[in-house]
Amino acid sequence: MVLLVTAAGQPHVLAGEQEHRDSLAVKNLASLGLNDLEAFHLLQRLTSAAPHRLSGSHGAETAIALTQSMMQKFGFQNIHLEPVTVPHWERGKVERAEILGSVSLQQHRLSVAALGGSIATPRNGVTAEVIEVHSFEELSRTNAEGKIVFFDWPMDPSHVNTFEAYEETVGERVRSAEQAGKAGAVAALVRSLTLSNDDTPHVGAMRYGTDIRKIPAAALGARGASWLSEALKHHPHLRLRLVLSCRTLPDVPSANVVGEIRGSEHPEQVIVVSGHLDCWDKGQGAHDDGAGCVQALEVLRLLSKAGLVPRKTVRAVLFINEENGARGGKAYATAPERAGETPVALLESDAGGFAPRGFRIQADSPAVASITRWKNLLGLLEADVLEKGGSATDISAMASRGVPALSLVTESQRYFDYHHSDKDTIDKVNPRELELGAIAEAVMCYLLSERGL
Amino acid sequence: MVLLVTAAGQPHVLAGEQEHRDSLAVKNLASLGLNDLEAFHLLQRLTSAAPHRLSGSHGAETAIALTQSMMQKFGFQNIHLEPVTVPHWERGKVERAEILGSVSLQQHRLSVAALGGSIATPRNGVTAEVIEVHSFEELSRTNAEGKIVFFDWPMDPSHVNTFEAYEETVGERVRSAEQAGKAGAVAALVRSLTLSNDDTPHVGAMRYGTDIRKIPAAALGARGASWLSEALKHHPHLRLRLVLSCRTLPDVPSANVVGEIRGSEHPEQVIVVSGHLDCWDKGQGAHDDGAGCVQALEVLRLLSKAGLVPRKTVRAVLFINEENGARGGKAYATAPERAGETPVALLESDAGGFAPRGFRIQADSPAVASITRWKNLLGLLEADVLEKGGSATDISAMASRGVPALSLVTESQRYFDYHHSDKDTIDKVNPRELELGAIAEAVMCYLLSERGL
Repeated sequence: MVLLVTAAGQPHVLAGEQEHRDSLAVKNLASLGLNDLEAFHLLQRLTSAAPHRLSGSHGAETAIALTQSMMQKFGFQNIHLEPVTVPHWERGKVERAEILGSVSLQQHRLSVAALGGSIATPRNGVTAEVIEVHSFEELSRTNAEGKIVFFDWPMDPSHVNTFEAYEETVGERVRSAEQAGKAGAVAALVRSLTLSNDDTPHVGAMRYGTDIRKIPAAALGARGASWLSEALKHHPHLRLRLVLSCRTLPDVPSANVVGEIRGSEHPEQVIVVSGHLDCWDKGQGAHDDGAGCVQALEVLRLLSKAGLVPRKTVRAVLFINEENGARGGKAYATAPERAGETPVALLESDAGGFAPRGFRIQADSPAVASITRWKNLLGLLEADVLEKGGSATDISAMASRGVPALSLVTESQRYFDYHHSDKDTIDKVNPRELELGAIAEAVMCYLLSERGL
Repeated sequence: MVLLVTAAGQPHVLAGEQEHRDSLAVKNLASLGLNDLEAFHLLQRLTSAAPHRLSGSHGAETAIALTQSMMQKFGFQNIHLEPVTVPHWERGKVERAEILGSVSLQQHRLSVAALGGSIATPRNGVTAEVIEVHSFEELSRTNAEGKIVFFDWPMDPSHVNTFEAYEETVGERVRSAEQAGKAGAVAALVRSLTLSNDDTPHVGAMRYGTDIRKIPAAALGARGASWLSEALKHHPHLRLRLVLSCRTLPDVPSANVVGEIRGSEHPEQVIVVSGHLDCWDKGQGAHDDGAGCVQALEVLRLLSKAGLVPRKTVRAVLFINEENGARGGKAYATAPERAGETPVALLESDAGGFAPRGFRIQADSPAVASITRWKNLLGLLEADVLEKGGSATDISAMASRGVPALSLVTESQRYFDYHHSDKDTIDKVNPRELELGAIAEAVMCYLLSERGL
């Protein structure tokens, strides 16, 4: 199907016709996607070939080569890598927390993992009393000198949308080492950010301030955190030895992976659909964000297979380094390739391969109004929630320059059960839910191309 | 919190106040539910004590006693059983399909299970050639005399909403034996109704016509069905032996389980929230419909815990025999206990313990319009899809008398992966998703009681 008209400049009488034609396009994309379930097949290949894809790692390079070859196999155009210099942090082999004291205390095992960017402990670890705090404010009133600060500040389950609970708490993880270091502590232990009652560490990024002493920081499994909190009530001077062998190596060259379908009328006008290729070195990064990457590839495959030749260029971008630097998104925004291009909009899927509910839009009011007119069409996919809000990380650099940014909104309940942990594996992904996310993005790209903002 | 006013008859100026108060009630119910996750704890108890709860079985009686004791523990009022005479069909120990012919064919194992209500085969099974059909129309053009008819008519994955795909195909299962028997066949084999590429039979009800010869019927795992279809291309005279030992016993007495919170102002006006306690004898009936039952209990617990004393009676009804007779729903509609009661509305959750999306409403237009005014409040739960449509089975008897019937709509993608199979177990239920369904129902009961239709 080649599209011959757009609404812009067409007489009003054609609106119904256009709506009908577009609803057929939506149903066709849905049918093709739900029959093939290709996004899931791609994700199986990605997660088995490169389960660990942290920036700078061998896995990340494998993933870059693999997804580039997927683009070639699908026959995308202008396939290339755009260079990005990325940080290189390695977990190392040792991460351990030992309780000292009585035999019964020593029998308890705590499940820990270094936070991304943490320095190592000395080879024999740091050994100190543990002090529990529930907020930075409480820390500021506490004598933490020489102690290991245990941040026991769980995500609040009262939020219906789990991302709200995460936003409220993520600063605890990111600033734990900075704040505890400032208070004179020797290490920071952070209750994992999850809504699941599990005992696997959920890791993630942290950062040090510029003018303070660096101390090591690790995530602690939720059940272990509950145990530790209880133990501290009975043993307020409980001591713990934390051993971490992680290290930061020099920055290394890496890349964003780019491929596209050139627009038939306005190739210089570019719609981006994206995910991030890097992930933490736990699990397989299946939901975060293997899902978003294979969906971006699937969007272009679906448009091609449906015979929908877009007027504007639809480009898949697989960003590197979302998790610990966001350098891929920044590099994309300033790459020499951007010269002479007119960005139309950027989409990113980075909320897991769960059933899509719609899009969160960062754009000016006229653009939001245009997109809102497509609500009925997105309703055919049960993905018609359209809300104003901030964008996903990678596309925020372009969004801050005023380019409309659309982030896929998914059913959020399970995301933080798996997030940044050994549980984020492909068996947690439902092939239809993953595919529907790709279909929703394909429909959005189609409408952005054919109707415009 | 005791509610002192309703919108009805109040000056318009109070509308905003009411909306504010009700939004606080919604947030309070959500917070209580999401912190306690009690529905999941109840479901753990139900599925471990009585995983198989088919009408007439020991498991069903265990479930009746257990849920009645749960109601007592929660302090519900007017707890009682309402008698229902139910069919009693048993699977028996043997269900087997053997491929005859070459050794390589014989090595392949087919995973089968009798459809509910099927007669047994003779002890040595029925042995016949297999003929594949894809519709009843094709069957009518086929010589099926003396054959085993293999209905290879998959659910169409093109549908975004999986229930639409099921509705389109379920007649294949229900009428397979009737139609094949009419055509002179000796048995019917039906491709399992699922969207999952698994090899476990998904069972369910079937029925015989009144004036025809009964033949046995079984469900076949999806992968086995694909294998059989392929094998028939190479071996068109492939023969198969089907052995089933199921049997129908005389009807037995059973019951619906009922408990309530009496209305403070209008106890005779009754809002029902319900699920069905019976389930197939595969898996644990966790999603279908243990989820709906524990949610009904949780609705009353949540309203009580929130201190929301409803003006009208809110009643939990756990129906028996939804799966193979729907006698529980019919018995409820005509029970002597209904005399002197004014039914306000009935809710049922029978679409699995997945994240709620809203309600499907079978009611007259004014009632639908009233409920639609609560969209913003349900939006706080991300469950504000309100659509007109037919009701769940158990509440359809009352709905056909004009009582508004509201069926919980859930995220549908995974439902038919588990439905009526060994895969419908509690590990497939996410505690927050299950709880949110209960919270959405609690909010709906609260609004039905306090604002009215």
